[in-house]
Amino acid sequence: MLSDASKTAAGRPRVVKMNAEIRQLICEMRESGRTVGLVPTMGALHAGHLSLVETSLRECDTTVVTIFLNPLQFSAGEDLESYPRDVGGDIEKLGDMGVDVVFVPTNEAMYPPGFSTSVIPPTVAQPLEGRCRPQHFRGVTTIVLKLFNIIPANTAFFGQKDYQQSLVIRQMVADFNVPIQISVQPTVRDTDGLAFSSRNAYLSSDQRRQALSIIASLQLASDAVSRGQREAPAVVAKMRQVLADAGVSRVDYIAIVHAETLAEIRHIQGRTLAAVAAYVGNIRLIDNLIIRP
Amino acid sequence: MLSDASKTAAGRPRVVKMNAEIRQLICEMRESGRTVGLVPTMGALHAGHLSLVETSLRECDTTVVTIFLNPLQFSAGEDLESYPRDVGGDIEKLGDMGVDVVFVPTNEAMYPPGFSTSVIPPTVAQPLEGRCRPQHFRGVTTIVLKLFNIIPANTAFFGQKDYQQSLVIRQMVADFNVPIQISVQPTVRDTDGLAFSSRNAYLSSDQRRQALSIIASLQLASDAVSRGQREAPAVVAKMRQVLADAGVSRVDYIAIVHAETLAEIRHIQGRTLAAVAAYVGNIRLIDNLIIRP
Repeated sequence: MLSDASKTAAGRPRVVKMNAEIRQLICEMRESGRTVGLVPTMGALHAGHLSLVETSLRECDTTVVTIFLNPLQFSAGEDLESYPRDVGGDIEKLGDMGVDVVFVPTNEAMYPPGFSTSVIPPTVAQPLEGRCRPQHFRGVTTIVLKLFNIIPANTAFFGQKDYQQSLVIRQMVADFNVPIQISVQPTVRDTDGLAFSSRNAYLSSDQRRQALSIIASLQLASDAVSRGQREAPAVVAKMRQVLADAGVSRVDYIAIVHAETLAEIRHIQGRTLAAVAAYVGNIRLIDNLIIRP
Repeated sequence: MLSDASKTAAGRPRVVKMNAEIRQLICEMRESGRTVGLVPTMGALHAGHLSLVETSLRECDTTVVTIFLNPLQFSAGEDLESYPRDVGGDIEKLGDMGVDVVFVPTNEAMYPPGFSTSVIPPTVAQPLEGRCRPQHFRGVTTIVLKLFNIIPANTAFFGQKDYQQSLVIRQMVADFNVPIQISVQPTVRDTDGLAFSSRNAYLSSDQRRQALSIIASLQLASDAVSRGQREAPAVVAKMRQVLADAGVSRVDYIAIVHAETLAEIRHIQGRTLAAVAAYVGNIRLIDNLIIRP
C-alpha cells in the first residue's frame, strides 16, 4: 500500500513541492514502521549524489531526495546564478534508480516573508571553508535543520567531499538534539581521479587537466606521510608546488588539520585531514583525503 | 499500561534526567496515539506556571513539565546565581496536579563539552528585551529548540507575561519548520494585580507595593486608549509618571508597539502591546497588556 502511495508510476518518483505534504507522507511511513533515508542535494546530480542515493536505497525502506538550490549558503559574488540546474533530468535519474520521493520546494516555501531565524554553526565551522565563505555554513545548517524537521528521516546521507560540512552537521545535530543519524559516505571520483562536483560542469578540458592537480597534491600528501613524513609545513609546501606546477595559483587553503577539530597541526599523528580549496579559472573546487601515519 | 509506565506512584510524577530516556518515553506515548503537552520552565513554579500546566492537563493526554535553569539565557551580571530554586517543591506541586512526567536535565546533559551551535533569533527578538538583554533570546531559542527535539510534544505552552518570548518562539518554530503547536496562555496575576513571576520572591513588602505601579501604568494605558487616546507618546509619558510617582525610576523600557512586529507606533490602532520593564531595587520585572482601541 505504502509503496503505491509513494510512487505515482513505476520508475517515476513521487515529486512533492509542499512542506506539509512531504511531512505527512514521511510521518505515515515512519508510523507504519518503514525506515526513511534522506539525501539532501542542490540538484545537478552527479555520481557522488547517486552513490549517496544508492546507499540510502540499500539501507532504508524509503529514500527521499531533496533538490533545493539554497540561496542562503551563497554569498554575494558567488555562483548562485550560474549554478547548474536540471531538475527534470535529476528526477529522471532518481526514478531510474527507484527513489520513492523527491522533494522540490520553492524558495518561497523555504523562506517565506518574515523568515529571519537562523543557525549559528558550531566552532568546527570556523576554519577552512568558514574563513573563506563566512556565511556559508550558517546557510547550510539552517536549511539542513529545516529539512530535518520537514522530513523526519531515520538517516541523512552526506558525502565526504564536503568533509567540513559533515562535521558541522554532525555537531549541530548533537548540540540541538535532532533525532536523526548522519551517515558520511566516501568521495566518488571520476576515472581520472577528479572528485565529482556539480561545479565540474563549468570546466573546460584544459581546466579539467589543471583541476587534477588538486587530487594529485592530496595524494602526494598521503604518500609522503605513508613514507614517514610527519612535518605538516613540509607537506603543505610540496602540495603548493604541485598546484603551482599545474598553473593553479589562486589557492584558498592547503590544510593539514586534525580530522575531528580541524585545528591546524604541525606534527602529523593520528587521523588527519588534508584539504585543498583552489580556483581553476573562476571555478572554486574543494577536495580532501583522510591520511593516517 | 502507559499511564503506569509514566508514573512511579499515584500522585508522584515520573522524574527523568536523561535525554534518551525522556525521548523514548514520549515517542512511545505519541506512537500509542496519546497527545503530549510540554510546559518548559526554569523551576521555582508559581501560579503562572501552574496555570499552563492545568491547561496542558486539560488539553493533552500526557503532560511533561521541564525544569531547567538555563544558564545560556542569562548574561554576566544577571541573576542566574540567585535565581530561586526549589526542584523538590516543584515536583511535589506537579505531582499534586497529576502531571505525568517531569524532565530535570543536568547542565552537562544540555551543554556537554564541545557544545557550540546556537540559534540566531528572528528579528522580533531585537527590540524591548532583546535590546536590554542582548544574549537572552539566543539562549531562550537554543534551549527551547533542544527541548522540542528531545520531547516531541504536540503542543508547548508559554505564558503571555513573556509576550515577546512567545512571538520569538512562534517565529522560530515557523522558520525552522519545527513540528509543534505553540499555545500562549493569559498572564496570571496575584490578588493585588502583580503578575506572578519567580523573581517576585525577591521583593520586600515595600518593594512589592512599588512593583504594583507597573501593572497600574499598563492599566492606565489601557484605560486611556479606551477613552479615546490614540497618541502613543502621550500614553508613555503618563505611564512613566505612574512609575515615577511610585519611586520606580530605573526603567528599561515603556513601550507602545505593534502587537505582532513589536515595531514602535505613534498612532494607536489595531492590536497593540503595552509593555514595561523596570527595576524595583535590584529586581528587574516585566509585564504587558494587549490593548485595543
